[in-house]
Amino acid sequence: MITLSSDFGTPYPAAMKGVILRRSDARLVDVAHDFPRQDVRAAAFWLREVLPYFPPAVHLVVVDPGVGTDRAALAIRTGDHALVGPDNGVLLPVARELGDPEVFRIEYGDASSSTFHGRDVFAPTAARIHEEGVDSLETLSDITPTDDFEDLRFPEPAVGEREATGELLVVDDFGNAVTNVPGEFLDVGEIEANGARAPVTPSYAHVEPGQRLVTVGSHGNVELAVNRGRGDEAFGVAVGDEVRLEK
Amino acid sequence: MITLSSDFGTPYPAAMKGVILRRSDARLVDVAHDFPRQDVRAAAFWLREVLPYFPPAVHLVVVDPGVGTDRAALAIRTGDHALVGPDNGVLLPVARELGDPEVFRIEYGDASSSTFHGRDVFAPTAARIHEEGVDSLETLSDITPTDDFEDLRFPEPAVGEREATGELLVVDDFGNAVTNVPGEFLDVGEIEANGARAPVTPSYAHVEPGQRLVTVGSHGNVELAVNRGRGDEAFGVAVGDEVRLEK
Amino acid sequence: MITLSSDFGTPYPAAMKGVILRRSDARLVDVAHDFPRQDVRAAAFWLREVLPYFPPAVHLVVVDPGVGTDRAALAIRTGDHALVGPDNGVLLPVARELGDPEVFRIEYGDASSSTFHGRDVFAPTAARIHEEGVDSLETLSDITPTDDFEDLRFPEPAVGEREATGELLVVDDFGNAVTNVPGEFLDVGEIEANGARAPVTPSYAHVEPGQRLVTVGSHGNVELAVNRGRGDEAFGVAVGDEVRLEK
Repeated sequence: MITLSSDFGTPYPAAMKGVILRRSDARLVDVAHDFPRQDVRAAAFWLREVLPYFPPAVHLVVVDPGVGTDRAALAIRTGDHALVGPDNGVLLPVARELGDPEVFRIEYGDASSSTFHGRDVFAPTAARIHEEGVDSLETLSDITPTDDFEDLRFPEPAVGEREATGELLVVDDFGNAVTNVPGEFLDVGEIEANGARAPVTPSYAHVEPGQRLVTVGSHGNVELAVNRGRGDEAFGVAVGDEVRLEK
Repeated sequence: MITLSSDFGTPYPAAMKGVILRRSDARLVDVAHDFPRQDVRAAAFWLREVLPYFPPAVHLVVVDPGVGTDRAALAIRTGDHALVGPDNGVLLPVARELGDPEVFRIEYGDASSSTFHGRDVFAPTAARIHEEGVDSLETLSDITPTDDFEDLRFPEPAVGEREATGELLVVDDFGNAVTNVPGEFLDVGEIEANGARAPVTPSYAHVEPGQRLVTVGSHGNVELAVNRGRGDEAFGVAVGDEVRLEK
Repeated sequence: MITLSSDFGTPYPAAMKGVILRRSDARLVDVAHDFPRQDVRAAAFWLREVLPYFPPAVHLVVVDPGVGTDRAALAIRTGDHALVGPDNGVLLPVARELGDPEVFRIEYGDASSSTFHGRDVFAPTAARIHEEGVDSLETLSDITPTDDFEDLRFPEPAVGEREATGELLVVDDFGNAVTNVPGEFLDVGEIEANGARAPVTPSYAHVEPGQRLVTVGSHGNVELAVNRGRGDEAFGVAVGDEVRLEK
């Protein structure tokens, strides 16, 4: 199984699929191709949330604003999974979630384009790892272990007894605003988020449509939301903003 | 075969796919993940139009504004198909179209989230029904027959000899405005729709680009359209509006 | 393998998939279902860029503004591939790229709808060709060779030593503006595109974010771009515009 993730929209992902299917009969599963454009951190967050639900697979990830520069290309073995993508940190959070990452550098020489390594470097490598097996990584001549790579870690929140200060990590397609504060902080019936009071509820429909709420999202973090509306707008927060919660 | 339908956008559907693929080798087919957000009626309409073209399958449907409340979770056996989703009516119109529905309630106890039952309740259940077979529904201990469930029926139009009064059910991605009036009403060359006269044509390109027309859509209903344009805007109608047709 | 391409958005492509899966176990691969609406030329461009990366397959293509008129339905055999779609030119550029096209006309009699031939004519035909094999085209009774069909050719640029005049063919989802001028023209360090000077770079991230650049895109043509921004807006060009490049 090979999963595909990118910020490409269409139809570029189809070119990657064609390249893979010339080399492999692998089942292909799209994770998303509309990750926020060239937003390495958002993609890293969502991959960490979603890929652990998959059985062992090769995960092809192309959110790659540095394509065609001297940024390296990586393959990572972790748990029973492999990850393939650019050396910009996007693979690391999910790699740590899936197991104990071993990082390899892919020597790709002259790719046939310098603007579409998803098609010309990463897709063929993903197909090859799928066909040879995750354990073949050491034996592939153009793939060498490295400990020199870009890392990416999400900021840690400051969580006290009565207050927590965190950051808005991403906003999902519904408008739910996902913070980095662990859901366990929400042991009360009501909370103030950046000055706006809202009830703490088990899910969205526990308040009237259009009303604000604070809940524990499916990722386990505190989420600012509106029933049938957009939490980011109602709480006035955007990705990267500080979020201050007070009981 | 398991089909997947939701209003999730991305990447949440991928989490459901991962959950299924850990439990089943089923072929997965996406129906749509961009149904109008939390619009149970629109999803019910499209599912009724699209799923009957499929061979026997398990259909996973998650348009679920009431997630995490006490709304039940349903599995329905109908024809050779099974449907799995929330108890809000979304499954019923297509269930009746596919056969003679038998409705079951899924007892799911404590799901691991209260905001993402698609991943934590419906996807595992769909995988299980796929693996055990549609006929196993009675024998699964946490699935029990019920006749207490939310139904959903589309409004009936009033169709006379010279006039019909119906409702605008949905607008498709092209802007074609789909009514509930049966196509057979269009036995004339021209018609008035909410006061605007337009030719009755077999398809869109029978009028000049930008011109209004009324036709029988692929679902068999009267559709208000514009060649290479948006019928909803040209006829000034929105979902839920009354549509009055006069010969 | 059957690939699917359309301008349908959702959920209409799922109806085509259901129709195919009732007739065939073929692997289905989506190329794109969000091609610019009813834009035959844009779809023809992208198909020519993407489909050649696939192994032999039947390619179902439905960008079909003339659906329901007397436009013909075509099947094309080329290389080891088959293409199925409307007779409006959309299939021809990729057909020539894949091999030496032999064009057939599909006699479809009364389709069950006149507004959705993707579901009622093209999908069943694609499934049939997949099951019977590409070489069966002559033997299918309702498919006959023809040399009367719509062609489509992209305009040729005028390329001199110091100047080239071409056309803007498409803009991709990133905002990269793709011309018909071959990449070989870019043998200098800087160029003027419609009066705006910009560096010629191997890829996007060789200039600062927000800065203009000119590069060779993954299709081999000259592309006007902005690092992490939209080239079409920065260079003030839209599809169909003349693009004049001066060294």
